Amino acid sequence: MTYDLTTIGEGQIRLTCERGERLSTARSLRMTAAGSEANVAGLLSELGRSTAWASKLPKGELADRIALEYSAVGVDIRHTVMTEEGRVALYFLEPGEFPLPGKVTYDRLHTPFRTITPEEFNWDALLDTRVVFLTGITAALTPETARVVRYFADAAVERGVDVALDVNFRSLLWTGEQARETLEPIARQSSILFCSRTDARVVFGIDKPDVQACHALREEMGVPTVVSTDGRAGTYLSTAEKDRIFEIHSVPVIDRPGAGDSFVAGTLHGWLDGDVEKGIQMGTKVAQIALTHHGDLTHVRPGELQTLQSSDIVR
Amino acid sequence: MTYDLTTIGEGQIRLTCERGERLSTARSLRMTAAGSEANVAGLLSELGRSTAWASKLPKGELADRIALEYSAVGVDIRHTVMTEEGRVALYFLEPGEFPLPGKVTYDRLHTPFRTITPEEFNWDALLDTRVVFLTGITAALTPETARVVRYFADAAVERGVDVALDVNFRSLLWTGEQARETLEPIARQSSILFCSRTDARVVFGIDKPDVQACHALREEMGVPTVVSTDGRAGTYLSTAEKDRIFEIHSVPVIDRPGAGDSFVAGTLHGWLDGDVEKGIQMGTKVAQIALTHHGDLTHVRPGELQTLQSSDIVR
Amino acid sequence: MTYDLTTIGEGQIRLTCERGERLSTARSLRMTAAGSEANVAGLLSELGRSTAWASKLPKGELADRIALEYSAVGVDIRHTVMTEEGRVALYFLEPGEFPLPGKVTYDRLHTPFRTITPEEFNWDALLDTRVVFLTGITAALTPETARVVRYFADAAVERGVDVALDVNFRSLLWTGEQARETLEPIARQSSILFCSRTDARVVFGIDKPDVQACHALREEMGVPTVVSTDGRAGTYLSTAEKDRIFEIHSVPVIDRPGAGDSFVAGTLHGWLDGDVEKGIQMGTKVAQIALTHHGDLTHVRPGELQTLQSSDIVR
Amino acid sequence: MTYDLTTIGEGQIRLTCERGERLSTARSLRMTAAGSEANVAGLLSELGRSTAWASKLPKGELADRIALEYSAVGVDIRHTVMTEEGRVALYFLEPGEFPLPGKVTYDRLHTPFRTITPEEFNWDALLDTRVVFLTGITAALTPETARVVRYFADAAVERGVDVALDVNFRSLLWTGEQARETLEPIARQSSILFCSRTDARVVFGIDKPDVQACHALREEMGVPTVVSTDGRAGTYLSTAEKDRIFEIHSVPVIDRPGAGDSFVAGTLHGWLDGDVEKGIQMGTKVAQIALTHHGDLTHVRPGELQTLQSSDIVR
Amino acid sequence: MTYDLTTIGEGQIRLTCERGERLSTARSLRMTAAGSEANVAGLLSELGRSTAWASKLPKGELADRIALEYSAVGVDIRHTVMTEEGRVALYFLEPGEFPLPGKVTYDRLHTPFRTITPEEFNWDALLDTRVVFLTGITAALTPETARVVRYFADAAVERGVDVALDVNFRSLLWTGEQARETLEPIARQSSILFCSRTDARVVFGIDKPDVQACHALREEMGVPTVVSTDGRAGTYLSTAEKDRIFEIHSVPVIDRPGAGDSFVAGTLHGWLDGDVEKGIQMGTKVAQIALTHHGDLTHVRPGELQTLQSSDIVR
Amino acid sequence: MTYDLTTIGEGQIRLTCERGERLSTARSLRMTAAGSEANVAGLLSELGRSTAWASKLPKGELADRIALEYSAVGVDIRHTVMTEEGRVALYFLEPGEFPLPGKVTYDRLHTPFRTITPEEFNWDALLDTRVVFLTGITAALTPETARVVRYFADAAVERGVDVALDVNFRSLLWTGEQARETLEPIARQSSILFCSRTDARVVFGIDKPDVQACHALREEMGVPTVVSTDGRAGTYLSTAEKDRIFEIHSVPVIDRPGAGDSFVAGTLHGWLDGDVEKGIQMGTKVAQIALTHHGDLTHVRPGELQTLQSSDIVR
Repeated sequence: MTYDLTTIGEGQIRLTCERGERLSTARSLRMTAAGSEANVAGLLSELGRSTAWASKLPKGELADRIALEYSAVGVDIRHTVMTEEGRVALYFLEPGEFPLPGKVTYDRLHTPFRTITPEEFNWDALLDTRVVFLTGITAALTPETARVVRYFADAAVERGVDVALDVNFRSLLWTGEQARETLEPIARQSSILFCSRTDARVVFGIDKPDVQACHALREEMGVPTVVSTDGRAGTYLSTAEKDRIFEIHSVPVIDRPGAGDSFVAGTLHGWLDGDVEKGIQMGTKVAQIALTHHGDLTHVRPGELQTLQSSDIVR
Repeated sequence: MTYDLTTIGEGQIRLTCERGERLSTARSLRMTAAGSEANVAGLLSELGRSTAWASKLPKGELADRIALEYSAVGVDIRHTVMTEEGRVALYFLEPGEFPLPGKVTYDRLHTPFRTITPEEFNWDALLDTRVVFLTGITAALTPETARVVRYFADAAVERGVDVALDVNFRSLLWTGEQARETLEPIARQSSILFCSRTDARVVFGIDKPDVQACHALREEMGVPTVVSTDGRAGTYLSTAEKDRIFEIHSVPVIDRPGAGDSFVAGTLHGWLDGDVEKGIQMGTKVAQIALTHHGDLTHVRPGELQTLQSSDIVR
Repeated sequence: MTYDLTTIGEGQIRLTCERGERLSTARSLRMTAAGSEANVAGLLSELGRSTAWASKLPKGELADRIALEYSAVGVDIRHTVMTEEGRVALYFLEPGEFPLPGKVTYDRLHTPFRTITPEEFNWDALLDTRVVFLTGITAALTPETARVVRYFADAAVERGVDVALDVNFRSLLWTGEQARETLEPIARQSSILFCSRTDARVVFGIDKPDVQACHALREEMGVPTVVSTDGRAGTYLSTAEKDRIFEIHSVPVIDRPGAGDSFVAGTLHGWLDGDVEKGIQMGTKVAQIALTHHGDLTHVRPGELQTLQSSDIVR
Repeated sequence: MTYDLTTIGEGQIRLTCERGERLSTARSLRMTAAGSEANVAGLLSELGRSTAWASKLPKGELADRIALEYSAVGVDIRHTVMTEEGRVALYFLEPGEFPLPGKVTYDRLHTPFRTITPEEFNWDALLDTRVVFLTGITAALTPETARVVRYFADAAVERGVDVALDVNFRSLLWTGEQARETLEPIARQSSILFCSRTDARVVFGIDKPDVQACHALREEMGVPTVVSTDGRAGTYLSTAEKDRIFEIHSVPVIDRPGAGDSFVAGTLHGWLDGDVEKGIQMGTKVAQIALTHHGDLTHVRPGELQTLQSSDIVR
Repeated sequence: MTYDLTTIGEGQIRLTCERGERLSTARSLRMTAAGSEANVAGLLSELGRSTAWASKLPKGELADRIALEYSAVGVDIRHTVMTEEGRVALYFLEPGEFPLPGKVTYDRLHTPFRTITPEEFNWDALLDTRVVFLTGITAALTPETARVVRYFADAAVERGVDVALDVNFRSLLWTGEQARETLEPIARQSSILFCSRTDARVVFGIDKPDVQACHALREEMGVPTVVSTDGRAGTYLSTAEKDRIFEIHSVPVIDRPGAGDSFVAGTLHGWLDGDVEKGIQMGTKVAQIALTHHGDLTHVRPGELQTLQSSDIVR
Repeated sequence: MTYDLTTIGEGQIRLTCERGERLSTARSLRMTAAGSEANVAGLLSELGRSTAWASKLPKGELADRIALEYSAVGVDIRHTVMTEEGRVALYFLEPGEFPLPGKVTYDRLHTPFRTITPEEFNWDALLDTRVVFLTGITAALTPETARVVRYFADAAVERGVDVALDVNFRSLLWTGEQARETLEPIARQSSILFCSRTDARVVFGIDKPDVQACHALREEMGVPTVVSTDGRAGTYLSTAEKDRIFEIHSVPVIDRPGAGDSFVAGTLHGWLDGDVEKGIQMGTKVAQIALTHHGDLTHVRPGELQTLQSSDIVR
C-alpha cells in the first residue's frame, strides 16, 4: 500500500501574538500552518509513516505557506485541490497567561473547502492506505464537508480499509445532537475511536466516571478500540481485552494548539504497529513535546520518544 | 463646528511580511491598521485638525487593534458601530523588491461594514463638520455601502457642508462604468475632487494629456477644484482661476501603502486653510514621508512640513 | 460632567531589556510609556470611563510617544502643556529573574514637569469631573509639583468634587515625614484613600497588623473609605460600615510595572459605581492581568473582568 | 519516468548576519539551507518539475533543517544517505554593503559527504530521470566526490539519460588544471553545459571575447548546447543553430547567494521543454527574483515568470 | 604580580535557537562566545580580578567574535595565538523545555587549538599570576592539549604558583580511566580541586555518599581544598580544618550553559581572598545568576553578590 | 611608551529606532555606545594601536554598557572615573530616510562628566602616549570640561607629547566665537588639526574655496598639518610640503553617526606611521565602512583596508 494514513481536512493559517503581548496592541504576529488532520498526518510522517492529506485551497501565497509546512515533513499534499477563487481559513491566537485565558478568533468562513464535493478528490489514491483518519471538526463545518467525510468513511469500509475517527467536538460549530447524527454512523464503522470523556457525554449522552465512559462508548458503538482523554485525570483505553487508565502529568506550556492532534498521531503510530497501549504512551509523550514549541505541527524525531527522562543537557 | 473633517470607510488589518521575505515562507507578519478614509482622517488629526471616522466593526481584539491605532493620533472613533458578529477585513502584503512587484492579497469579504445602512450612524454628529470626505473605494464595496456614501453626500450638501471626493478607482472592485454611475452624482456635488488622470479616463472617459485632463474633468463635473495625480509625470490642479502642474520627485520606498491617502490629507489640510496650492505642496511632501515608514497611517508633525530639505542630521 | 476622572502626573518613557538580557550587554530595549496617574486614567478609559490626564512635556518625538500611547486608549490628553525646552523623564528596567531582582534606573530629573505651576493648567476643564485622582509620587517630586497637587485637591473640594489619593510612597524621593506633611492634608479631604500597610507605618506611623492598620488609618484621617494592600497577605478595606480582608493569589509575572496602578484603577471603577468591594475584586483581577503583558499600561476589555476562570482556550 | 531531474551534492547550513551587522559583533544569525545542486532541484520543483536530490548527511537536527527546507518545496530527498557520525557543512556569510564586500567563511571540511562512494546510492532510482544535473563544486570537494560525480555521469550516458553540467569553478577548492582534468570528460558527455566566460578561460583555456568564448567552448567540447554567463556583460548561448547574446539588467540585491543556481534552474526549465532560449530568459528572471529574498533557495511560482514588468502593487 | 588568574582553553561559538523553537525548523540562532576557562576568567574579571586567557584561534570574524566578548569584560586575550588556517569550534544548542531535554550538537573537531604545543605560548607572562586555572575539558581534547595542560601545571608548581583544577569530566570526550591517567598528576599538585561527586566516582573511583566523597578525594589526592558539587543535593567542601555541606536551591532556568563555570569562578573569587567558604557561597549565587541570562559568560557586578534577597523592584 | 593615543571625552548611550520606524511610534530601540573620542580610540585599537580613553561615568548598568563596548575592542578604560551619583548622557536617533532628515534628540545635560576637574585624572598614565587626541565637542560642553581639555593639551605639550585636535564644531553647544576663544590656543599647540571647511569659516573666520581654506588655516594657526573635510567636494590636506585634494565617493548609508570619527581615526593611523596622505586614504575608506553598519563605533580589521575594491563575494 502506498500510504499508512490518509486524511482530509481544512488547511489554515494561524496568526499568534507573542507571549506578553495582546492582539489589540501587537505589532507582529507569528504565522504558522494549522489543520487538525494535517497535524496528525504531519507528525506521523515525521515518525516515519507514509501519509497524505487532501484539502482544497485557493491558489496563492497563503495556500503555499500551508502546503510548504506540511510538505516539509513529508506529507503528500498532491491530492489537495487548488482553486482559482476564495480565501484561506485563518485563526488568530492570543496565547494568554494565567489568569488571562488564551483567546482564539476564528476566521474560517467562506473558504473553498466548505463546498467540497466527493467528485473533486482522487479516491483511488486516497484509499490506497492502511487507515483513513477523519475528524468531527471537518464533519462539523458544512453539510458538504460532512457529506465528504461520510463518503470517505464508507468508501474505506467498502474497500476494507480501517477508519480512525477523532470526535473532537467543537461547540462553536455545532450542537451535540447534530454531531451525533453525523458522527455516529462513522463511529460505528471505525476501528479506533478517539473521544474525550466530555465529548462522550455531550455528543453520545454517555455520562459515566473515568474509564467507564470509555468502556460504555465502546460497547454502545461497537468499536474495537476507544481512546478517551479526560483532562488531567488521565487517558482511558477500552478494548475487548481490557480497560486501562493512563496517568498524565502536567508540563509547562509554551504553545498549546496541536497537542491533542499530537496525542492522536502518537497513539495511531503505536496502533499501526498493533500496540495501542504503547501508542497511548507515545501519544502522551508527543503531546507533551507539542507544548514545548511553537506551531500546531509538532516536530519530533523517532529517537526522541525513547529519551524523555531528563531535562539536563548531555555532554 | 466640532470637526474639520468627517468620513466613513472600512477599517482593515494589514499583515505584511518583511522585506526580503515571501509570504509563502515568512514566519512573522507586521500587523498595522488600514483604511483609506481613516488614513486621511488620521493624518489630518496629526496635523492639528479635528476629525472623526465612522465605520462598522465586529467587537474583539482585531477591531480594537484598528481603533487604537487611529485613536492614538486623535481621530474621534466614537461614531463607529460595534457589532457582536462578523469578521474584520484583512489584507496581506508582500512588499516585493524590483523586479518582483508588491503583491496584495485582499480578504475583505463578509464583513459587517458591507451591509451598513444609513440608519446606523449618528448623522447629526458626523455632519457637524467643515467637510465630509468620501471615497470611491467605499462606494465600490457593495450596493449598501454605495447607498450610505450617497446618503452622506446628499445630507452634507443639504446642510451646506462641503464634500470632498477621492475617486480612487479599484479595478478589482468594480468597472469604470459602475464607478461612473455611482460617483458622478457625488462628484457633481463636491467642492473638491481628487481623480488621477488614469481614473479620469477609465471612470469618466476623459482621455487628455497632462493638466488638460484635470481641466476637462472640472468643466464636465462642474466642480470648483479638481486635483489629479499622474504618476511621476506630476500632479495637476484645475480651478476657476487657473490650471497648474506640480512636479514630483521619486524617493526611496520603504512602505508604499498609504502614500496616496497622505497626499489627499495634505492637500485637504491646505484647502481647509483656503490655499489648495499650498495644500498640494504639503500633500506631496507628506506622501513622500509616507513612503519612509511602515504602515498605512503616516506619522508626521506639523513642523516637519517646513524642514524637508536635507537628509543630514542637525547637531 | 465631562469626565469620570481627571488626574495630573508626569509622563515617562520606560526602556526595558528583554527577559534573559542584562542592561549592560543588551542590544535593544523595549520602549513603552509610563506614568502612574496616566496608567490609572488609561485603564479606566479602556473600561469605558471618560478620563483626562494633565502633564507637562517637552515637544518632540518622545513626548509624542507618550501622548499617543495614552490617547490610543481614549484618555483626553489635550490638557497637557507642551513646552519648547527640556527633556523627557525616563526609566530603564532590567526585569530580573529570580534570584536577580528587577532593577530600575530612574532618570527623571530636570524635566519641565518638575517646575509646573497652577497657572499653567485649565482647572475649569480638569474639575469638570466626578473624581480627581492624585498620588504621592507627583507630590514627592518637587515643592512645585507638591504645590500643584495640593492646589488641585483644594480646588476639587471647593467645587464638591471627590478626591482619590494614592499614597504610593517612594523612599527614593522623600522621607516618611516629608510625605506625611504634604499628604496628610490631602488625605483628610479625600473620599477614598489608597495606602499600603507598609506606607501606613512609614508615612502615618500606624503600625498595626492586617486590616487593623487600614481601620486605624481611616479613623485617624477621617476618610470614608481606605483601601490597603499588604503584599501577598491580602488587601484590606475599611469603611464606616465594615472592615474586610480580600485574598489575593500569586500569578506568573511577565512584566511587573503598572500592576499597582491597575489595582487602583479597577478599584475606582467599582467605587465610581458605588460598590468599592466589587471594585477591589475587579482591581485584583486587572492587577493580575497587568502582570501578563508588557508595558505599564494594562490592556483589558470590560468583558474580560467576568471571564477569568480558566486558562484553557475556548473553541 | 519518475523524475525530470536528479542530482547529487552536499547539503549545507548557511548562517548569515543581518544587513548592517558584522559577524564579529552580531548577536543573531539567520539560518537557511544551502547547496548548489539542491537549490537547482528545489527551484525546478517549485516550477512544477519532479526532482530528487541525493546527498549524505549526519543524522540530527541540522541535517533535518536542510532536509525540511528542500522537502518543503517538493524535492524528493529520500535518496539521501543518513549516517550516525560526522558534522554538517556550514558557511557563514557577512552580506557586506558597498564598499565592504560580502565575506564568506566556509566550514565544510570533515563531513560525511566528502567520503561518499558509488555503492551508497540507489542509482536505479536516481537514473529514472530525464536529466542528471552535476556541478564542478561537488567534483572539486575530494577525490571521492569526484569519483561519484564521474560515476553518475557515466551511468546516465550509458542509460541514455541526458547530463547537464555546471562548471561553477571555485578557486578556493581546486586549480583550473585540476578542474579541467576532472570535468572535461563529463563535459564531453553532456547535453548542456553551463560555464561562465571566466571559467572557460581558467578551466578550459578558452580566452575569447563575448559569445565567441561560448561558441569555442561548444566546438571544443562537442556539446550541443553551451550557456555562458559574463557578469553584467550579458549571457551567451551557443548551439549548432546559432549563437546568441542575452542582455541582463542589474537589480537591487537583498541576498546574493543562490542567484546563479536559480539561473541554471530557470534555463533547465525551458531546456526541458525544448526551448533553451526561453529557458535563459526565465533563468535570468528567476536569478533576479533570487536576489530579492533571503536564502539560497529561491521561492517563485510559475505564474510569476510572466508578470515581472512592474514594481507597483496591483489593486 | 600582573594577574590574579591565568588559564588556557578553547574558544567556541555557541549557536542557540530560541525557547519554543527546534533546531530543525529555527530560522535564527543566537550567537554567543563560549569556553569553560574563558568563562571563569571572564567572570573573575567582572568581579574585579586581573585575568588572562590563552587560546589558539584561526584569524577571522568568528575568532574576533569570541575575542571581543571576553575582552569586553576585561580578560587579557593578548596571549592567544592567532593562526592563518583552520576553523572555529562551534556548538549548537536547542535549549529544550520539559519534558524535552536540552540538546547540544558539538562541532569542535579539526580546530587549531587541538594541536597546540608548549612552544607557542608566552609562559613568562602566563605564569606571572597568583593561580593557574586548568580543566579536564582541555586535557581531554587531544594528546597535544593534554600535554600543554600538564606543562602549564608543572611550570606553575615549579615557580610556586598555585594550580586550580576543575575535573569537569565529559563522557563524550574520554573515559574515566583516561581522565584519571591525565588528571591525577595535576590534581596532586593542585591547591584547590573542583570535582563533582559523580566525577569523583567515574574518574577517581571514589564512591561515597555526600561530603564523604569530597573528604575521601582530598585525602587520596593530598589536595588542601576540594570542592564538590552534587546536583540538587548540595555542594561539599573538604579542607584540613573541616568538611562542610552547602545547601543549594533550584531557580528558574533561562539559559543553562556556563552556570558550572560561574560557580567555579565565584568560589575562586573567595578562595583568592583566603576564604573558600565565602567563595562557595558567592559561587552558588553567581551560578544562580548565570541561569537568569543568555550566554555562557555570566554578567554580574560585585555589588550584586550582596543583594540577592528579593525579586521585587526597589523604587 | 604605553599608548599610541590617549583621549578624554564623554561616554554616551545611543538609542536608535529601526529604519522605517518613527520614534513617536517605535516599540523597540537599538542601544549602542557613543562618544566621539571613544570612537576614535576604539577604531585605532581595532587597527592595532594601543589606546586609552578617560571619562567620568555614574556607576551602573548603563555605564557598564558603554565601558564594555569600547573595552571589547581593546581600549584601556581603566582611567575612567566612576562616580556614585548622576546620570548617563543619552541621545535618541531617528535615522530618517529621504526626504525625512535624520533627527537627533540629545539628552546629555546634568551628567558627572560636565563637572570634571583636572585633579580627578591620572595624568602620568594618560600622558605616557605618542599623541593626545582632543575635540571641540568636549571643550564645548561646560567651562569645566573646557578647562580639562586645555589642561590636557598644555600638559602634553610640556612633556613633548603631540596633540591632535578635531574642531568638530557643534552649533547647538556654543557659538563660533566661543569655540575660537577656547580652541585657538589648543590648535596653535597641535601637531595635527582636523577642521572642516565650514568650521574654518564659522570658528576661525577663514572663508576660502577648497584647499585654500585648509592652507590658510595652517598658516594662521602655525600647525604643521591640517586636514579639512568639505562634504562631497573632497578632503583637503595642507602641510609645509604641499597642499592636496582627495576625492571622496558617496556610498549607501545604513548608519551615519561615527563616520566622521572613523575618518579621523584612519587619518591618525597613517599619521602615526609618518604618512598622513596614506592616513587620509585609510580614513576615507574606514569612514565609508562606518556607514555600512550600525553603531557609532566602526568595526574594521587591518586587512580590510587593503581589499575594498569589489562588492562581490570571493569564493
